[in-house]
Amino acid sequence: MTRVAIYGATGYTGFELIRLLMSHPGVKITVLTSEQYSDLPVDRAFAPFRGRLPKVAFGKMGQVRTEDVDAVFLALPHTVSAPVAAEILPRGARVIDLSADFRFRSIPLYESVYGVRHAFPDLCKQAVYGLPETYRDALRKTRLAAVPGCFPTAVILALSPLLAEGLVDAEGIVADCKTGVSGGGRGQNPGLHYPEVEGGVRPYGLPMHRHNPEMDQELSLAAGRNVAVTFVPHLLPMVRGILATCFATARRNVTAKDVEKAYRKHYGKEPFVRLCPPDVLPSTKDVSGSNFCDIAVRFDGKTRRVIAVSVIDNLGKGASGAAVQCFNLMMGFPEDEGLRRLPVFP
Amino acid sequence: MTRVAIYGATGYTGFELIRLLMSHPGVKITVLTSEQYSDLPVDRAFAPFRGRLPKVAFGKMGQVRTEDVDAVFLALPHTVSAPVAAEILPRGARVIDLSADFRFRSIPLYESVYGVRHAFPDLCKQAVYGLPETYRDALRKTRLAAVPGCFPTAVILALSPLLAEGLVDAEGIVADCKTGVSGGGRGQNPGLHYPEVEGGVRPYGLPMHRHNPEMDQELSLAAGRNVAVTFVPHLLPMVRGILATCFATARRNVTAKDVEKAYRKHYGKEPFVRLCPPDVLPSTKDVSGSNFCDIAVRFDGKTRRVIAVSVIDNLGKGASGAAVQCFNLMMGFPEDEGLRRLPVFP
Amino acid sequence: MTRVAIYGATGYTGFELIRLLMSHPGVKITVLTSEQYSDLPVDRAFAPFRGRLPKVAFGKMGQVRTEDVDAVFLALPHTVSAPVAAEILPRGARVIDLSADFRFRSIPLYESVYGVRHAFPDLCKQAVYGLPETYRDALRKTRLAAVPGCFPTAVILALSPLLAEGLVDAEGIVADCKTGVSGGGRGQNPGLHYPEVEGGVRPYGLPMHRHNPEMDQELSLAAGRNVAVTFVPHLLPMVRGILATCFATARRNVTAKDVEKAYRKHYGKEPFVRLCPPDVLPSTKDVSGSNFCDIAVRFDGKTRRVIAVSVIDNLGKGASGAAVQCFNLMMGFPEDEGLRRLPVFP
Amino acid sequence: MTRVAIYGATGYTGFELIRLLMSHPGVKITVLTSEQYSDLPVDRAFAPFRGRLPKVAFGKMGQVRTEDVDAVFLALPHTVSAPVAAEILPRGARVIDLSADFRFRSIPLYESVYGVRHAFPDLCKQAVYGLPETYRDALRKTRLAAVPGCFPTAVILALSPLLAEGLVDAEGIVADCKTGVSGGGRGQNPGLHYPEVEGGVRPYGLPMHRHNPEMDQELSLAAGRNVAVTFVPHLLPMVRGILATCFATARRNVTAKDVEKAYRKHYGKEPFVRLCPPDVLPSTKDVSGSNFCDIAVRFDGKTRRVIAVSVIDNLGKGASGAAVQCFNLMMGFPEDEGLRRLPVFP
Repeated sequence: MTRVAIYGATGYTGFELIRLLMSHPGVKITVLTSEQYSDLPVDRAFAPFRGRLPKVAFGKMGQVRTEDVDAVFLALPHTVSAPVAAEILPRGARVIDLSADFRFRSIPLYESVYGVRHAFPDLCKQAVYGLPETYRDALRKTRLAAVPGCFPTAVILALSPLLAEGLVDAEGIVADCKTGVSGGGRGQNPGLHYPEVEGGVRPYGLPMHRHNPEMDQELSLAAGRNVAVTFVPHLLPMVRGILATCFATARRNVTAKDVEKAYRKHYGKEPFVRLCPPDVLPSTKDVSGSNFCDIAVRFDGKTRRVIAVSVIDNLGKGASGAAVQCFNLMMGFPEDEGLRRLPVFP
Repeated sequence: MTRVAIYGATGYTGFELIRLLMSHPGVKITVLTSEQYSDLPVDRAFAPFRGRLPKVAFGKMGQVRTEDVDAVFLALPHTVSAPVAAEILPRGARVIDLSADFRFRSIPLYESVYGVRHAFPDLCKQAVYGLPETYRDALRKTRLAAVPGCFPTAVILALSPLLAEGLVDAEGIVADCKTGVSGGGRGQNPGLHYPEVEGGVRPYGLPMHRHNPEMDQELSLAAGRNVAVTFVPHLLPMVRGILATCFATARRNVTAKDVEKAYRKHYGKEPFVRLCPPDVLPSTKDVSGSNFCDIAVRFDGKTRRVIAVSVIDNLGKGASGAAVQCFNLMMGFPEDEGLRRLPVFP
Repeated sequence: MTRVAIYGATGYTGFELIRLLMSHPGVKITVLTSEQYSDLPVDRAFAPFRGRLPKVAFGKMGQVRTEDVDAVFLALPHTVSAPVAAEILPRGARVIDLSADFRFRSIPLYESVYGVRHAFPDLCKQAVYGLPETYRDALRKTRLAAVPGCFPTAVILALSPLLAEGLVDAEGIVADCKTGVSGGGRGQNPGLHYPEVEGGVRPYGLPMHRHNPEMDQELSLAAGRNVAVTFVPHLLPMVRGILATCFATARRNVTAKDVEKAYRKHYGKEPFVRLCPPDVLPSTKDVSGSNFCDIAVRFDGKTRRVIAVSVIDNLGKGASGAAVQCFNLMMGFPEDEGLRRLPVFP
Repeated sequence: MTRVAIYGATGYTGFELIRLLMSHPGVKITVLTSEQYSDLPVDRAFAPFRGRLPKVAFGKMGQVRTEDVDAVFLALPHTVSAPVAAEILPRGARVIDLSADFRFRSIPLYESVYGVRHAFPDLCKQAVYGLPETYRDALRKTRLAAVPGCFPTAVILALSPLLAEGLVDAEGIVADCKTGVSGGGRGQNPGLHYPEVEGGVRPYGLPMHRHNPEMDQELSLAAGRNVAVTFVPHLLPMVRGILATCFATARRNVTAKDVEKAYRKHYGKEPFVRLCPPDVLPSTKDVSGSNFCDIAVRFDGKTRRVIAVSVIDNLGKGASGAAVQCFNLMMGFPEDEGLRRLPVFP
């Protein structure tokens, strides 16, 4: 059994990691950390899992022993993750980091986006961006995976085939994203107080959300040239789910067939990307609680506009599901181990 | 007192008309029609208004006398409205139609969009598109107002100043819209069954929603040239509200100042359009239950992308509120009579 | 014009007071206070009312002049209200207090329930419990109204006729209440973080919610003997509304007719209590945004169980609407002035 | 592998059965029936499971071959289930019926409650009520399980220990229940149209919901005497979950300790009933997506009132989860096979 620690286990991504890993046949969770709830008994801190968690070490970071774990999931805020990773990696354990700390290829870019200095820039070189659809082989070999942000996951998966195959202009791409509230984390936030959210929708993060440079980085790599997406996130009155509606302009002579072929080529064999049939548009409800990313594409020949729509569960493929997928690759498990569960519907 | 009839009074726009007109000091509702609920006593058919409705004639269309009403609101489906309007107008009453029947300047366009023949094409010539921000004077003189669709209202108000002032390209405009479920009406619809909607978001109406040609018509008129918006509506788990996120590309040399000036010029004196302060983004909750349209604009000088965001209550400024605003203009009331109420928050 | 100050104006009950009083023809709001948001410009602190608020004095309590107001609404926490009332009353202004500070007839009971000392016990003697259905005449004469708690309002209105007419046992009464989240206020609260509330329901406040002794006090007065209700509140995923389902046992020989007669007697002429027709059960949606309390009663002759169900908008009849109703009585306005608006539906 | 058929597979309980059984290591789903969606391809009819369902026979009842299945789940309406069961049982397959057809010990009671004649009254004798907490041994031996209604499950589990141990009066018991909308099924229903439900709460089913006699039957058996619960269900704006708040009066001399002991005795070893710690109240969110029933009990020594609160997922322990639990007992699988998954939170 692979012994696993989860740091930041009482946040929403921490909970989802527990839920997923508890049904993973090759995993034993041995350590859970929490900065806020570690004074509570395990049954209280993890109320929905009451009576079903194995015996674990539970406490604040630094209070628990992690010498004998084989893999560590870091569900921690940016800047908090990096030092923990730096401490754990030399001991031999694999690290799957859900923060932004190791997602950027350019340290200065990270530093300007997050407004901090990166304490362990050298570590970034070993990190692999945790998108198996692009970096599967590298993930198999790395000891440090940087799980992508939730919005970048949705937008990159929606647009990559178009850019990689050179079917659309690199300029003028728009990604209008809609997210459930759990993406904002479990911490107090006046804007996420129930009555402020319920019954309404609003954009946020303008002029520049932190996830924008991240998606630009990966889409530019896919395109082989500079891509600057116009990205606007919106907060919706729901708990889970991200829907990305992406608009791009097809290059001359590109046909609907070309577009369709690109998606099939890129995702035809992917275990978690599902292309919608021609007359179906995706809903976040179709992927809720799962690791799926459903994608539909429409091409309007007249305006030459391509519309690519993707949906994920922000806590699934957008965070903890993706983390387990990376973990499976890194540890040699079948890629979909612990992730085969179907969406919860309705 | 102006005597008013409301056709289709038990639908959601009908209810909102009653709510608004009951607090209008110059109005007396004398006739209500309903095709579905007219067998019920008034108190049952209008449960939330139980005991507070005046004595009215209530029945199916054709069963009630409308000879002595001064104005008629038609909250009816398209194709049902036109014949009723044709029958009422000769009697001298004003007609405020909330359907699509009189919104189009081109009958063939209407016919192709709605897939029906228009039974009274001549009437369209007298109709004025019910957007006071553009057609205030014409509305003061007309006997027939065609209240805009909810999406066109949000998108046209967001984009008009940019196009009218020639600040953005007519090509490549995107309108990504989010709507609450009440826009889908009160009628049965498997896709609007509660568990199918709650907790998720999905696009619909692709490749071409009926409201697309309507907004194109008005934006083209504003721009003085052909505009073909790429419009994608999304269904959100909430009852009221539309948020339109519109993307356009600024023409060369256009500055943020120019953009700001255009909005001030167009809306500075409008009673129901509120421009957000520089650091505020609009929320549908800020306009819920009111006739307001709140707008914020952002200009990214680097990509030359202009993002205009508007919010309305789809049953307010998006339908019944707009209808009352038109009615006020047509009947010589102060434009905001019955519409001064503040939004309901939270 | 009656000049009015609202203390605690940026909380949810404060907002609702503004919304109601802004459409009250005899009122001019001249002072608004806020402890949290008073550093913001008025337009930001009251975003949904942006551009529509009159010129007011706005600041923290103590920073604003209230010498020349005629009435003051205190939408403040308990213990904060009493000293403000004590300061204002001698100046001659009427005080409508929405806190618990003046609701109790027994100071020791207040002190034990709220775990504090009452700083102005003498003031309590002048206070009238703000339930016009019971204390209308006294409210007309008082200078200090103590607006009831939201749960007590719903439960007292549902049960009073049964107890006042001696139709049910005073023992064994159960009040199972369901509330929207706005009742918990606007302040940060981990339990009211959106993802913790949405999609679920839970009881709270056991073994004894603060509103329990308050409803016991008033029901005991109605019954003329001691009543101790078993009260359990539940938090629901919605913003506004309280539904109280009350269970009592009919005394021997009591008939359904007797029950019906009692409710007609008590509420037949009430402007805001609406008795549902025999085959209708109330919904909080039928009173949302209004000052109504809808009530339905069922009597099961076999088990002798009476079930009385009431619904209110917790921010309407459960707080700010009731406060305005008290204000109207105290100032000599028609009782329903500013409160005639219909519910917002859907 | 046990070959399984699911009748009524495109309803909400059908979907949940598929979700659960797809992760059951001993099961192979070979037949799915649907009356409404059987003309669609499998991928469309079961959109959230797109691309992940095994090859199955899919069609209307009667169109598919069920000769070689080992067990059949009937997620069908009452009266539709019984004839199908009657046809399948002689072939040797086990039947797990989720309808009401085999839940009643008294045929006349069933007939009066459901207003129909029972076509196969003799079959009822072989049926075992599918509540493993009470009928575990009988379920191991039966070929026909009658899965309880969702409300009865919640109420019986909450109250059984009190009645079985003689701790409370059989008279005067109240069960106030709150349910999500999925309990109303997937079929069209004007009252379950999204805008009619969202943002509000209402009771329904008064004076007598169909589930009332069912819970009375089982609680009377537990008590050894006649029990007639006063049961009121309420519809909440959420998809999944039932919360039952049950009120009973403790018999003389009964102590809080006695109450606690009763629950421990009954549920201490139950795999799916979790007793909350003393200071925790249950939330439906803590059991969502799982087969758990969480219970908390409070005893007010002064009024002698016992309050027992239980929560279930109405599609889990309230329907499909319970069905799989019965199936496991009937087929000799570990009782929790396929049901070990943790709740989905948040």
